[in-house]
Amino acid sequence: MKVNHVPTYTMSEDEVSKIVKSCDTHKVPIVPYGGATSIEGHTLSPNGGVCIDMSMMNSIKALHIEDMDVVVEPGIGWMELNEYLEPYGLFFPLDPGPGATIGGMCATRCSGSLAVRYGTMRDNVISLKVVLANGDIVKTASRARKSAAGYDLTRLVIGSEGTLGVITEVTLRLQKIPQHSVVAMCNFPSIKDAADVAIATMMSGIQVSRVELMDEVQVKAINIANGKDLPEIPTLMFEFIGTEAYAREQTQIVQKIAAEHNGSDFVFAEDPEAKKDLWKIRKEALWACFAMEPNFEAMISDVCVPLSHLAELISRSKQELDASPLVCTVIAHAGDGNFHTVILFDPNIEEHRQEAERLNKFMVLTALSMEGTCTGEHGVGTGKVKYLEKELGVEALRTMKRIKAALDPNSIMNPGKLIPPHICF
Amino acid sequence: MKVNHVPTYTMSEDEVSKIVKSCDTHKVPIVPYGGATSIEGHTLSPNGGVCIDMSMMNSIKALHIEDMDVVVEPGIGWMELNEYLEPYGLFFPLDPGPGATIGGMCATRCSGSLAVRYGTMRDNVISLKVVLANGDIVKTASRARKSAAGYDLTRLVIGSEGTLGVITEVTLRLQKIPQHSVVAMCNFPSIKDAADVAIATMMSGIQVSRVELMDEVQVKAINIANGKDLPEIPTLMFEFIGTEAYAREQTQIVQKIAAEHNGSDFVFAEDPEAKKDLWKIRKEALWACFAMEPNFEAMISDVCVPLSHLAELISRSKQELDASPLVCTVIAHAGDGNFHTVILFDPNIEEHRQEAERLNKFMVLTALSMEGTCTGEHGVGTGKVKYLEKELGVEALRTMKRIKAALDPNSIMNPGKLIPPHICF
Repeated sequence: MKVNHVPTYTMSEDEVSKIVKSCDTHKVPIVPYGGATSIEGHTLSPNGGVCIDMSMMNSIKALHIEDMDVVVEPGIGWMELNEYLEPYGLFFPLDPGPGATIGGMCATRCSGSLAVRYGTMRDNVISLKVVLANGDIVKTASRARKSAAGYDLTRLVIGSEGTLGVITEVTLRLQKIPQHSVVAMCNFPSIKDAADVAIATMMSGIQVSRVELMDEVQVKAINIANGKDLPEIPTLMFEFIGTEAYAREQTQIVQKIAAEHNGSDFVFAEDPEAKKDLWKIRKEALWACFAMEPNFEAMISDVCVPLSHLAELISRSKQELDASPLVCTVIAHAGDGNFHTVILFDPNIEEHRQEAERLNKFMVLTALSMEGTCTGEHGVGTGKVKYLEKELGVEALRTMKRIKAALDPNSIMNPGKLIPPHICF
Repeated sequence: MKVNHVPTYTMSEDEVSKIVKSCDTHKVPIVPYGGATSIEGHTLSPNGGVCIDMSMMNSIKALHIEDMDVVVEPGIGWMELNEYLEPYGLFFPLDPGPGATIGGMCATRCSGSLAVRYGTMRDNVISLKVVLANGDIVKTASRARKSAAGYDLTRLVIGSEGTLGVITEVTLRLQKIPQHSVVAMCNFPSIKDAADVAIATMMSGIQVSRVELMDEVQVKAINIANGKDLPEIPTLMFEFIGTEAYAREQTQIVQKIAAEHNGSDFVFAEDPEAKKDLWKIRKEALWACFAMEPNFEAMISDVCVPLSHLAELISRSKQELDASPLVCTVIAHAGDGNFHTVILFDPNIEEHRQEAERLNKFMVLTALSMEGTCTGEHGVGTGKVKYLEKELGVEALRTMKRIKAALDPNSIMNPGKLIPPHICF
């Protein structure tokens, strides 16, 4: 049944349950709506239906300082949560785009630059409450930090993109704000050198908290946007955390590794203002791109490969990107093998859109040929549906479809997302 | 259909697929069999059927040093795997009982003393291959370290105890063998003091690699078994890892924390032999218990609670344990809030068995009243089935049952385990 798109603000778990149950009875599609910062079409309503806006369910229900966990409603943003936690010396260690909400972050299994140290949403959620299509309110796990009690419903829902249920409560693991941190930056003659340093850093056993790689085009964008004069060559940025002595020791070890791989201009900052200035370069990378093409849109790729393939993947991609008429920059979470390109295109020019799509596809297929994934952290949505079978095989997709059909027999939960439409079982 | 128990050694994934498909056609139960070190009845065959022994599928298929991962068949033991990895400076950081195999460890979502630093099986598996009841061979994920590509089938299978499929291949994340480690031991006048030190250590932001707590009865057992003369009071054992300087710095920070909580006799070892000797005390704790009652069996409890409740849970449990005619010792993975008691009983005396069961139940219900779990790491099997509904609610169990029915409609996969028999949907 196709119906108009009806936005609904919800106030409570019980209300969500009633809405969902009613929609199930009448076979009306539901699209849960968080911060809407996702870029793979997760919040589109291809069949109309009810869009449940979770922004009013944004309270902090309980903070357990000694357990280092917090229970929140899904509509709260990660930045607001961290503001609340700061006076307690705690933080939630995921940093996707500003505006992302905890519920949406669970739904897309997101991560960010800190994942190399703290993992993704998969690793930082203790339990969930979820409203299923039949209106059941399911608690997925106890509040214990670890458990072997039955199927891991928590992880099943994380990354399910609203296709299995609506998340109404999240219990998150928190981390201590590090005593000290050092931010460092270093340049390399080639992407391969930079990637080799990321590998050697990971293999050194050092627990770096961030390793971010930018190509020369990205650095150029930053220079234009911020009036900087950074060397326009491949650049790595690091963050080291821990006690003061340990953060410094790690910095020195990585400085040595960088020197062994043709690294130059190793600069680091410990002073809070200097760190902020240095890190701002990376943080505003996406916005800097628009300084080069102010009226364009960005298509952002999101492939991720085993670390040893990262250099080759980026090198092969850059041949295509550099030869393209479109402006493309590279930003990688290099410690995880996750690599984004920002492809700038004019949305009014069909050839532009097709070229952006072609480049994205080239990178996905190259990553898949290296045992990688089409999406490291942005999710499937509608954008990556076409690549899933090649990545995982039809048997895995059939299994997902069976689970989906078992929990949502009327297919009302965010239909058209994640599972390719042609999959039968 | 009830059939006799037929052990079957399998040699390949294809063979597993054929066996399972054939069993599904004829509705014959299947029990996958690993190291059989689990203690919750996972490998029982209540309805007879085919027991698939995975011990012949124990090869290492690929080691990717730069990616820090390894692809193995499920029958390999974690200890054999670590022997193989040692020359490469790598290890797999989970340490359940000796004899446990990687496949079984996935199936039970196991962990051990290192989980406080490295997480459980949930956190250390990149992808699986699994044979489902219909014979489908499913690849659950790519080899990338992180991915947002569809439902997390990897995590769904981890902890499913053979009830969803037979694991035929595992890709594991590896860790660098730490440059340096320090083992330390410290005594406390009360369990509360010891638990408070565990909390304060976790909250300090230090990444201790092990925090193990033993009560005075456990220390007594060790003294008897090993001819030692350790003070028979609550005792914490730590392991600190990292660079030499960092491991020492952590030791000093925790020594200070211990002193603030009435800790005494803080000893630590850095020399390899001295460390081995010190750690042997904890490693052989279970066997030491049998020195007190050589002809008895042990029932081992496995509750886990949010860390702030650990001291109260142990204190309340010890009142019951100390008042019992049975000898009971306490060993806790204190950094995770996971707490084992070894309850020694004569299997020939029915009252003994009932008393052991009563104590176990007391601890489970107490843990559940504290938002904890009936099983931190041993799994559900048949032993914990009766507590799951109280822990998770009927809605969660109904959801599990639906998933089970969708993937194993003839209920041939390890029937009678994990899902309580009364659950309908």
